[in-house]
Amino acid sequence: MEPAGVALERKIIDPDTYFDHNRPPANLQRTHDQVASFLEKHKASSRPIVLVTSGGTTVPLENNTVRFVDNFSAGTRGSASAEQFLSLGYLVIFLYRENSLQPFNRHYTHNQKGLLDYLQLDNGNVTVDPAYMEQVKSDLLKYLSSKDRLLQVTFTTLSDYLFLLREISRLVAPLGSQAMFYLAAAVSDFFIPSHSMAEHKIQSGSGDLTLRMNQVPKFLRPLVKNWAPLCFIVSFKLETDVKLLEPKAKHALEKYGHQIVVANLLNTRKWQVWLVTRDQDPCVLQISKEDLDAGRDIEQDIVAELARRHKEFMSRDA
Amino acid sequence: MEPAGVALERKIIDPDTYFDHNRPPANLQRTHDQVASFLEKHKASSRPIVLVTSGGTTVPLENNTVRFVDNFSAGTRGSASAEQFLSLGYLVIFLYRENSLQPFNRHYTHNQKGLLDYLQLDNGNVTVDPAYMEQVKSDLLKYLSSKDRLLQVTFTTLSDYLFLLREISRLVAPLGSQAMFYLAAAVSDFFIPSHSMAEHKIQSGSGDLTLRMNQVPKFLRPLVKNWAPLCFIVSFKLETDVKLLEPKAKHALEKYGHQIVVANLLNTRKWQVWLVTRDQDPCVLQISKEDLDAGRDIEQDIVAELARRHKEFMSRDA
Repeated sequence: MEPAGVALERKIIDPDTYFDHNRPPANLQRTHDQVASFLEKHKASSRPIVLVTSGGTTVPLENNTVRFVDNFSAGTRGSASAEQFLSLGYLVIFLYRENSLQPFNRHYTHNQKGLLDYLQLDNGNVTVDPAYMEQVKSDLLKYLSSKDRLLQVTFTTLSDYLFLLREISRLVAPLGSQAMFYLAAAVSDFFIPSHSMAEHKIQSGSGDLTLRMNQVPKFLRPLVKNWAPLCFIVSFKLETDVKLLEPKAKHALEKYGHQIVVANLLNTRKWQVWLVTRDQDPCVLQISKEDLDAGRDIEQDIVAELARRHKEFMSRDA
Repeated sequence: MEPAGVALERKIIDPDTYFDHNRPPANLQRTHDQVASFLEKHKASSRPIVLVTSGGTTVPLENNTVRFVDNFSAGTRGSASAEQFLSLGYLVIFLYRENSLQPFNRHYTHNQKGLLDYLQLDNGNVTVDPAYMEQVKSDLLKYLSSKDRLLQVTFTTLSDYLFLLREISRLVAPLGSQAMFYLAAAVSDFFIPSHSMAEHKIQSGSGDLTLRMNQVPKFLRPLVKNWAPLCFIVSFKLETDVKLLEPKAKHALEKYGHQIVVANLLNTRKWQVWLVTRDQDPCVLQISKEDLDAGRDIEQDIVAELARRHKEFMSRDA
């Protein structure tokens, strides 16, 4: 018997057939309606718009799902970036994994605290604990002043994500160069098609488990070619091996024909990223340890630089 | 080539060897110290104590973890039960999956809202939105009045969970029948041993992925036999197929020799459970749809019945 571990074989399905064989998420129609009215409401503003995707997708191992494969991502990159886009005047559609970090609210979650830990009883009145008051007030002001330009949509599974991405892309596509796609979500590379899945919880009585998973087709191709061909598209690449980073980013740009890859390493991603384009040397963005410890987000630099390039992209189009 | 899907083979390692081959979590020593001083502080109170485990464990697929297999569990059962144990006067050690639901705070998370959504600005002052005030105040009162009897400890991976479970069990064991174990966490059945794991992110360029996972040894056996042999131990069984529920629960009781299995089905678990013991017919607990919709937790009934049986267990021991 082979030892526990992983092995790879060849077989990839066509992106187009994926949608025929998987069920759309319950919030698809609602999302269509919400995005359409969001775009309608802000039509006259001529603000740039960005779709930010954030958090990891899951792939179920059983049709009655007890177990699933997940991708490591709290949604820090996406939620922090959404804040920066809002501060630069963008309209933001935030497509995020349910229960992952959300803009502004991200500072008060995933930290072993809950709502009640920020509150106190003061003579019978519920108030915010003075230790947090200043920060809470500052974030609340920012949140309230930009909430109107933020539309949040949730996904859980890979399949939810792909259906929602296609739907939103088609609605945003008519805005052409005015729209940016900032695809920071950690999307699964492998899945088990619904028809090959175990119906009930996989039983553990009989020893080892062998899972055979299919590769997820690359949806960046139809996104760039068909769904939103005139938009400014930024994809992300997370690796753990630095040697693979630039070649894989360049390869993606050549293969899919989009504008920028933001490349980063699992262990240094909070303070260092590379912006990779087809024609130029990678541009490295990084912040110091002091700035990082002082609470500065590298997303401020990433988004500022991308907004600058997006502006150039729009002006070439004008 | 076989289709995508699952296959099983035989091979299970010894529970004792598990700890030799896996690295303890960063919070192991801190948890030891916290539990020891929690027990010391409440020594004179003679209150019963319960260890509640809650949420799902993860198993990494890579040593530099980008992907992992997760178990479906928000931690509803565990967090709601911890509240009930506190209301009955228990001391509670709550061992929960990081970012899963916590007692009292659970009502304000995993609902697409964050802290800022419960607050408002009122003449420049931050206050709780009146729509939530009554509920928040009621939960805050309960939380503040029982916080002193609640110790919360987090885990993420299967390995974290097992090390922490063993450590806490050994510290609690000397309390004998006064201690209950309420093992509601959804623990992985399969894992990839560290030495067989891919070092870097598994590459997706080459087609299908085959994962070969080993079965996790059953830690209920050493828990009941060696770590805490005199305590009152309640395990959980979640299935999707009703036919397997009672036989699997009875089988576990005979195999491990503990006191009770709480058996439930994925789709009805919020309003129906069975308490299964070795000698009696299963006792079904259920609440009506009306009660469920009105916000009643079935955990109120489960915990009341278990506390009653725990009292009997203690009195037989006296």
